[in-house]
Amino acid sequence: MDYAKILNDEEIKEIHESSLWILENVGIKVRNEEAREIFVKAGCKLQDDGLTVKFPVSLVESQIKNFVPKFTFRGRNPDYDITLPDDRPCVVTGSSAPDIVDPGTGERRRSTSTDIANISFLINELKGYDVFSISTLAADAPEGQFSISRFYPALKNCEKPVRSNTPSLKELLDILELGEIIAGGKEAYRERPIINHHYCPVISPLTMDVDSTSCVIYLVREGLPVYGTIVPNAGISGPMTLAGTVAIGNAEFLALATLFQIIRPGTPLIYAVLSTAADMRTGAYIPGAIETAILQIAHTQMAMFYNVPSGGYIGLTNSHVNDSQSGYETGMNTTAALMGGADLFNMGGLLGSLMVFDFAKAVIDNEIALMLKRLARGIKVNKETLALDLIAEVGPGGSFMDSMHTLQHMKDQVLFTEVSERDMFQIWEKKGKTDAATKALAIAKKILSKENPVGLSEDIDKRLRERFKGLVEGKAGWCY
Amino acid sequence: MDYAKILNDEEIKEIHESSLWILENVGIKVRNEEAREIFVKAGCKLQDDGLTVKFPVSLVESQIKNFVPKFTFRGRNPDYDITLPDDRPCVVTGSSAPDIVDPGTGERRRSTSTDIANISFLINELKGYDVFSISTLAADAPEGQFSISRFYPALKNCEKPVRSNTPSLKELLDILELGEIIAGGKEAYRERPIINHHYCPVISPLTMDVDSTSCVIYLVREGLPVYGTIVPNAGISGPMTLAGTVAIGNAEFLALATLFQIIRPGTPLIYAVLSTAADMRTGAYIPGAIETAILQIAHTQMAMFYNVPSGGYIGLTNSHVNDSQSGYETGMNTTAALMGGADLFNMGGLLGSLMVFDFAKAVIDNEIALMLKRLARGIKVNKETLALDLIAEVGPGGSFMDSMHTLQHMKDQVLFTEVSERDMFQIWEKKGKTDAATKALAIAKKILSKENPVGLSEDIDKRLRERFKGLVEGKAGWCY
Repeated sequence: MDYAKILNDEEIKEIHESSLWILENVGIKVRNEEAREIFVKAGCKLQDDGLTVKFPVSLVESQIKNFVPKFTFRGRNPDYDITLPDDRPCVVTGSSAPDIVDPGTGERRRSTSTDIANISFLINELKGYDVFSISTLAADAPEGQFSISRFYPALKNCEKPVRSNTPSLKELLDILELGEIIAGGKEAYRERPIINHHYCPVISPLTMDVDSTSCVIYLVREGLPVYGTIVPNAGISGPMTLAGTVAIGNAEFLALATLFQIIRPGTPLIYAVLSTAADMRTGAYIPGAIETAILQIAHTQMAMFYNVPSGGYIGLTNSHVNDSQSGYETGMNTTAALMGGADLFNMGGLLGSLMVFDFAKAVIDNEIALMLKRLARGIKVNKETLALDLIAEVGPGGSFMDSMHTLQHMKDQVLFTEVSERDMFQIWEKKGKTDAATKALAIAKKILSKENPVGLSEDIDKRLRERFKGLVEGKAGWCY
Repeated sequence: MDYAKILNDEEIKEIHESSLWILENVGIKVRNEEAREIFVKAGCKLQDDGLTVKFPVSLVESQIKNFVPKFTFRGRNPDYDITLPDDRPCVVTGSSAPDIVDPGTGERRRSTSTDIANISFLINELKGYDVFSISTLAADAPEGQFSISRFYPALKNCEKPVRSNTPSLKELLDILELGEIIAGGKEAYRERPIINHHYCPVISPLTMDVDSTSCVIYLVREGLPVYGTIVPNAGISGPMTLAGTVAIGNAEFLALATLFQIIRPGTPLIYAVLSTAADMRTGAYIPGAIETAILQIAHTQMAMFYNVPSGGYIGLTNSHVNDSQSGYETGMNTTAALMGGADLFNMGGLLGSLMVFDFAKAVIDNEIALMLKRLARGIKVNKETLALDLIAEVGPGGSFMDSMHTLQHMKDQVLFTEVSERDMFQIWEKKGKTDAATKALAIAKKILSKENPVGLSEDIDKRLRERFKGLVEGKAGWCY
């Protein structure tokens, strides 16, 4: 596919130069001391406030030369490894919601480590997903085990790459130990680091925090996979005009990427600037709005300019239920981003912006993901697919229904959906008039009522429990 | 916007040549005698069956040279005239459903002329729509007034361009008389023909029918606006492989366009080949499937190759209710087609493929249409929108919320939606937990509870009733 473009080459250059101007003249307030030292040592100028650093254009430009074009997510099972942009689109769950819609009661409640185990199993089974970004927090986490109570049930129940972050470096080190035990040792882990890290070290506008920045510095130094997610919001943390917010988000990406490249030249990157615009009638955060797609496409064009993979949170919905809005917001934004060339889509399973996970939504989003992948495959044109001999044989007024060619291609041409209703009204009525969410929830229940075949070995589980006393159970199975 | 492409130049040429091959070697079965004579007189070869004509490549190629790049829809109010491709995207309702979801009972029933009056009023008021294609049939039509019972309430309640067709030439002539009386005479009508015709004279594969073909021949001869809609279905009336169905649909377009151009060189065209693919598990017609978008983009690329506007039925859903499926199917297919460069979108108001009109769906699709139009506008990059001075003024860690620049641009940057929920969960819960369809139906009711300001004058109404005895009332107003 040749991707759609909303910026021309001149505009891309203008945004690039605006970002360099911002870094040189406005700078970044770097609250993390270590990062500040790294920047200053590389030639940035520390301002009188002792926090803000300004970037010489030459420094940023020289680091851009170190960018590499690929990023790989690794899973417990290497068959699920996925490299951007080669294997695009890479579909990922939305992550870190505090709540879940309890599938038994239909009511919202705090999510637990058992919910994470179940979601992890589900995502491993649903073919549309490539990466499991841990969908929720775990309210039942024992003290001091906030992060491990999320990563353990996730890694235990899913062979696909697992992605998330931690609130501190201390918890990151625990998570890495968890990964090493699962991988069978430190060396084995370094060869195939199966935990995929992302952090939000940049707080828009133009600020770098303490803890997340410590984590990324550590990971980049160690050569472990990490990328930064940057989320300016036009009208609040960026200018209301989308071009200005793209320029500020792009500047923030360049600042973070510069940090990565100074520490370890050639560190893989994802351009994950996920700008949104605010609805200033109320100041509402509106990731489901169509402006999110517009911003994503512009950022993707900037990423192509720097020759790095792009994408991230695209396809969220503001709706709190599985209504039409939840469908068109997720569907339109992801489709636009796909056709604009984005590689990564954190799009699965969340309602109410980022606040609540819903099993039905996760299954619906899997179907949307499969539709996106079908769209990305497009049309193959050759002698077999043009089928001129067949057209001549069938002739005017004939039917292709019973030809062998139709039988041979019925599966490779058309996606056989599971959630989408295709029956005529009368048949659908007789079958009980189920809507998409009802069918989706039934699919989730069916999957989670089986035994999960991909659990950890007893030996590994034992060693983990010895190392992390009081670890949550993390066992998957329909329990609602 | 630079549009996305799924065919490269070589593939476009290959499909073009395949279509010419089909027309030359397989031909079109032309059941309409007059059309047959026109084709034969122009150099086509009639086959032994006395129906099938084969097209010399030179004939088709010479007619392609007569194609013109624009098509205009005209409305009662010239402010609503819309020209393709200049004014793209042109959003149109889906049309000719037999049924309606009664907004009072929520049940399906046959639609009536009063329903058409109400839908017409609603579409005139909703800013996302550009053309009203008459959404339903009229089950209460008096004998002999099947078409006029649809066109009269439509034209009476809507100043935007009205589009539909008739089952016969006799009814077409009635409709033209209706248009002339409304326009204030035959000459005034010829200057501004406010009825926009489309017909389906081609029945795939490769057949031209009797009645619709008569109508288009008449309209083209008279220089009145008309275009043909062509709907091959991969696996049934076209090859299962999408490339073959594009080739057959493209051949059918070229045959029909050749007929138009022979009759009147330079007749405006719309390339409205609306291919779908069948789900061969059941043979189901699946216009909501993502393959519809893939086919639409390929056809749009063919239309660009011939330099004519493109589009038509894109954005239908197979769902029977306003669930998530109805949102993602309409949203994904229209977004993909928009980014592939289609100009025309018959997307509004229908559920269950083409079977039933729903007021809530029409209002939801209006919001989707406005989102598409926002997406098409993209990003403006200039000094004002990059806002570098403002970024410097706000500085790292500041807020853009209270700046004058934000106030000035909050409306031109972000679409202020009406259906899409944007409140936080707690507020939404307090307000009654309404989903998109509930809000949309309330919007429809609010609009239709007002007086329609755009009715016909008493004088015109009187003359129409004198000419067409027993004409339906066609008065709009919420009556459910």
